[in-house]
Amino acid sequence: MTGGTPRPWEILQSSVVYSAEPWLRVLRQTVRLPDGRTISDYHRVEFPDFSIICAEAEDGRVVMVRMYKHGVGAVGLTLPAGALNPGETPIETAKRELREESGYAADHWRSLGTFAMNGNYGCGMAHLFHATGARRVAAPESGDLEEMQVVLMSRDELAQALQGGKIPLLGAAAVITLALWRPAST
Amino acid sequence: MTGGTPRPWEILQSSVVYSAEPWLRVLRQTVRLPDGRTISDYHRVEFPDFSIICAEAEDGRVVMVRMYKHGVGAVGLTLPAGALNPGETPIETAKRELREESGYAADHWRSLGTFAMNGNYGCGMAHLFHATGARRVAAPESGDLEEMQVVLMSRDELAQALQGGKIPLLGAAAVITLALWRPAST
Repeated sequence: MTGGTPRPWEILQSSVVYSAEPWLRVLRQTVRLPDGRTISDYHRVEFPDFSIICAEAEDGRVVMVRMYKHGVGAVGLTLPAGALNPGETPIETAKRELREESGYAADHWRSLGTFAMNGNYGCGMAHLFHATGARRVAAPESGDLEEMQVVLMSRDELAQALQGGKIPLLGAAAVITLALWRPAST
Repeated sequence: MTGGTPRPWEILQSSVVYSAEPWLRVLRQTVRLPDGRTISDYHRVEFPDFSIICAEAEDGRVVMVRMYKHGVGAVGLTLPAGALNPGETPIETAKRELREESGYAADHWRSLGTFAMNGNYGCGMAHLFHATGARRVAAPESGDLEEMQVVLMSRDELAQALQGGKIPLLGAAAVITLALWRPAST
């Protein structure tokens, strides 16, 4: 280990410079660093927290959705995911989004943790979940903007899709590997 | 597979509504969905692309940095990472950031792919790299704002840190698992 213990910054001033609530808020902050320097234009970008779900059907295949994502500008494979509604807990959002986007429900759920999307700007927290024993209980009924196809994929197919650039979102890649992969022996 | 083939959106109009270049730009777009609906306030958030590096030292331990991340508001463990400078390729950024943040260099590099940080808003592309045979060649010399400690961690220690919430950034979690984990047998 090298270097002294890292110390937090102090926020001296914070003001909203752009707002499109409830989806987006940009703040400009004045922060004081531990060494005494002051930075007057550090930004914070706020999105709603959201949940991402890796759900395995009873045959072990994973419930994926193929959809257009405007942040990517292309159609790709991803996991069911969505923002927390007001008053909703992350696991409630996960169950709702899985059902809305894919028509699947699952009894067994475990948390894979909560992670920040961007180390500098924030950009919301992602709550990651792994569900097993998922089964189709209804037709998808997403009220979102995107057209979607539900696709069941085996672990081998997912590994190939990740390697082949078919899964364009970092969040989906992280949840698939945290849920289904294990440390390789060195 | 259910549903028709998802179709892309069309951007009818796009204007910059907030700018703090070169770090941040927010655009408001009018988009036309495939079903004909028009959305007049869809946002795009642009950050520079960046590289994240999972570098294994010759003893198999991974080069981590402990630092304060203002996006998280706390000190935590993460991987060396940083934005592409103008004219730099992602692998050049990866090698520079590894050396600047940790003082390490490595001869063997492989790409783990390029992923979008946010499916709706963009938020920049992350270029993920796995390096092996890393060795310390210099003292860290980051010109960034953060104080840092370099920490070498075994695969077991990393798995425990991920489970224990000690690695707060989704990008670092994704690169660690994509680089060092393998699909578990079902």
